Amino acid sequence: MTAAYDRLKTRFARIATLGEAQGMLHWDASAMMPPGGAAARGEQLATLAGLAHELLTAPAVADDLAAAEAAGDWDAANLALMRRAHVRATALPTALVEAIARANSACETIWRDAKARADFAQVRPALEEVVRLQREMAGALSAALGLSAYDALMEGYQRGVTAAEVEPVFAAYEEFLRDALPRAEELQARRPAPRPLPGPFPVEKQRVLCRRMSERVGLDYAHARLDESLHPFCGGTPTDVRLTTFYAEDDVAKALMGVLHETGHAQYERGLPEAWARQPVGDAAGMAAHESQSLIVEMQACRSDAFLGFLGRELRASFGGDPGLYETGNLVGLWRRVERGFIRVDADELTYPAHVILRFRLERAMIGGDLPVADLPGAWTEGLRALLGITPPDDAKGCLQDIHWHDGAFGYFPSYTLGAMAAAQLMRAARRDVPAIDAALAEGDMRPLMGWLREKVHGQGSRLGFQDLLRHATGKPLDPADFMDHLRGRYLAA
Amino acid sequence: MTAAYDRLKTRFARIATLGEAQGMLHWDASAMMPPGGAAARGEQLATLAGLAHELLTAPAVADDLAAAEAAGDWDAANLALMRRAHVRATALPTALVEAIARANSACETIWRDAKARADFAQVRPALEEVVRLQREMAGALSAALGLSAYDALMEGYQRGVTAAEVEPVFAAYEEFLRDALPRAEELQARRPAPRPLPGPFPVEKQRVLCRRMSERVGLDYAHARLDESLHPFCGGTPTDVRLTTFYAEDDVAKALMGVLHETGHAQYERGLPEAWARQPVGDAAGMAAHESQSLIVEMQACRSDAFLGFLGRELRASFGGDPGLYETGNLVGLWRRVERGFIRVDADELTYPAHVILRFRLERAMIGGDLPVADLPGAWTEGLRALLGITPPDDAKGCLQDIHWHDGAFGYFPSYTLGAMAAAQLMRAARRDVPAIDAALAEGDMRPLMGWLREKVHGQGSRLGFQDLLRHATGKPLDPADFMDHLRGRYLAA
Repeated sequence: MTAAYDRLKTRFARIATLGEAQGMLHWDASAMMPPGGAAARGEQLATLAGLAHELLTAPAVADDLAAAEAAGDWDAANLALMRRAHVRATALPTALVEAIARANSACETIWRDAKARADFAQVRPALEEVVRLQREMAGALSAALGLSAYDALMEGYQRGVTAAEVEPVFAAYEEFLRDALPRAEELQARRPAPRPLPGPFPVEKQRVLCRRMSERVGLDYAHARLDESLHPFCGGTPTDVRLTTFYAEDDVAKALMGVLHETGHAQYERGLPEAWARQPVGDAAGMAAHESQSLIVEMQACRSDAFLGFLGRELRASFGGDPGLYETGNLVGLWRRVERGFIRVDADELTYPAHVILRFRLERAMIGGDLPVADLPGAWTEGLRALLGITPPDDAKGCLQDIHWHDGAFGYFPSYTLGAMAAAQLMRAARRDVPAIDAALAEGDMRPLMGWLREKVHGQGSRLGFQDLLRHATGKPLDPADFMDHLRGRYLAA
Repeated sequence: MTAAYDRLKTRFARIATLGEAQGMLHWDASAMMPPGGAAARGEQLATLAGLAHELLTAPAVADDLAAAEAAGDWDAANLALMRRAHVRATALPTALVEAIARANSACETIWRDAKARADFAQVRPALEEVVRLQREMAGALSAALGLSAYDALMEGYQRGVTAAEVEPVFAAYEEFLRDALPRAEELQARRPAPRPLPGPFPVEKQRVLCRRMSERVGLDYAHARLDESLHPFCGGTPTDVRLTTFYAEDDVAKALMGVLHETGHAQYERGLPEAWARQPVGDAAGMAAHESQSLIVEMQACRSDAFLGFLGRELRASFGGDPGLYETGNLVGLWRRVERGFIRVDADELTYPAHVILRFRLERAMIGGDLPVADLPGAWTEGLRALLGITPPDDAKGCLQDIHWHDGAFGYFPSYTLGAMAAAQLMRAARRDVPAIDAALAEGDMRPLMGWLREKVHGQGSRLGFQDLLRHATGKPLDPADFMDHLRGRYLAA
């Protein structure tokens, strides 16, 4: 029935519009809001979330979903996504949803303190409750969706890829890293140490440079803003994206690379299919797909030799000093440095996946009931030692470093590395399809790459799941070999 | 039934929270949003408004309102306001509400162009449609509320005062002005012309000064922001007020007096009773009450001799130059200048009511069916000549100058002058109750005045209508004599 499908489209557009309002209020809370507004903002976001949930779970939805018919690829995918969203929303009793929200919020608050004190015992009871409720949720979703418990959680962040597909990919990477990391370190040690750029870098100059570089990536500021927040992110809506960054006067790379990363996210949102705006199929394809777009811009394009040559000239014009500092070789030494570290968010692209693999295995074991929360610090230390050969001095630099688990996000971590691998795979396919990409990058021109991404990724919306999106764009499902080849070229060539 | 009332409180809190979200999105649209976000923002605001309307008009509301019982002043007032809101919302057929929204939006768009061209004929058909629909709305509300058609519209902006009460007040003012205006002009002409302050005034210095002065009024920036927009306003929510202003490099008074005015609005919101947050009775008491708070700060307090003395020292410290320029006498000459002009928003406090009286009479006649839109320009010219003795050179400086009617706002204009009169009446009562007010103003200390307003006005929320609020605070209903006495003291003393 077309009438039923039309009613559903109207309803889902309304739900999406509530989501847009939430997105703007989230951005405001991070970038603009005075501290005294926090309590009211919490109420506003909860009210909007509650109304969206009611719209999604209303009895009329089930009737219309049962009756609806949709013709054509896009409409069929749209209807399937509506069904999926409805099943996910109705699978969970309201009492469980509320208990989860309370437990996550309580644990997150305790975690901030526990992390500052490096005291895992302090947060352990709250985290145990979070994990207990996540397992309950995963069980309910698993039954409704016909997925494993962990996959049911992972699907909430990235549709179209399972843990059974991820595990061998990660195992292969672990194997690769065993030889690649010492080899990369050895090669790096042979080269002269890079010389730091001469700071301080005045914030106003950084702001101008960051904006100009994001425009180079193609961002149109008639549909975007760049502001500041403690934790940089890209929010807003497709016609009004809001990027944030954090300026450090002593380190221009922090804001600059951060803005380029967020611009990749922003360009994905900007390129989503307008004809499907506010429909499920018009959304981005998931968190791994999103991360592939930030990383193809930041890691694949902007940290390439070609683009660093251009960037060096821009930096020199902005900040001056010894021209040699801005040569590609020096920037490569500074900004493509490999280092075994404890902190995921500070990691280079070679060791970053090790941090993710560790978390993927631990969270899968926690959700599967094979790892009690009490054993987490020990399992973390052991796992990190096996992957990177280093031992964190305390839990603040170990299992307390990330907010994710303490805020109830289980199944999210794989997205980071799936995104990094997809970015390499997409870049290889783009270079094959559009040979002019690298010559353009050397001139700071991102248009050939962006044009390809617009068609192959952005414009596809959520029509395809992660593996199918890669098949469509590159001719094959996720293939870690492309990422490893990329790393070999950058870090293992003598 | 208490259960029914409790359900209503929950529902109205939800509606109010949607209103908070709308307030934030409105602020963002004016102060932050890139132009490309406008269409999506329109959708977001319409969706939130639609959901709020559905919550307010749901069948369950009528049942609960019929069953609800509330004990005590505040709860009784709250329940009465709930009933009023429900009656107003259900009195209008959805088709009419939508037709009004469309007609207003269409007319406003045409008006922008017509005003730029000073071409009333261009907007006339659209304005005729707006007026036709406003009359239809007023008729429907009138029947449901048992008020006259015009009063039913006016109540949408300010509860608790009728046109029959306003008319004699305005007639008395017209009478007063007939002698007062020439007399004030004559006295002014006898004094030496004031010397302008030495610009330019760098925006950053103005920003710092405006913020510091609003803090002097008592604004706490843990719960507020000050930003820029083309048309200054005060928005946001009581715990997170958002002020905007517009900085002109050649005129420091524009932003400074504007910020002090908006701070008066902001302080009202900040002082609303927390215990009744998000309930109808916890709201501000209406637009006239709101304007009384901006004007008591800007006109009564900040343009007083006492405060101008303090402000002169602050300005001199910020911008330097000849100390004589910053003396109270010179600032009085600059910032309390009387002048017959065509433009309401540029008017001084003596002639401002004439602009409002003109609009009140014309809009009342239009809603009453006694003034066809086609005759508006002529009636305007005639009315302005009778009130101020001047004739606008064209309709852009006449009946096209304000957005209000062209956006469907009929019944709003009286609020400006009711607010000005209430401000004078409140100030007199405050001075009587708290003799220290003026000595404190001379030191830039607004606390004695603010403390009184907190108790007598802000903390009353919406418990009382306009006249009752004045009775509560000053011992009498609106009495224009206090405003005229204030003007006599400022402008008619030799």
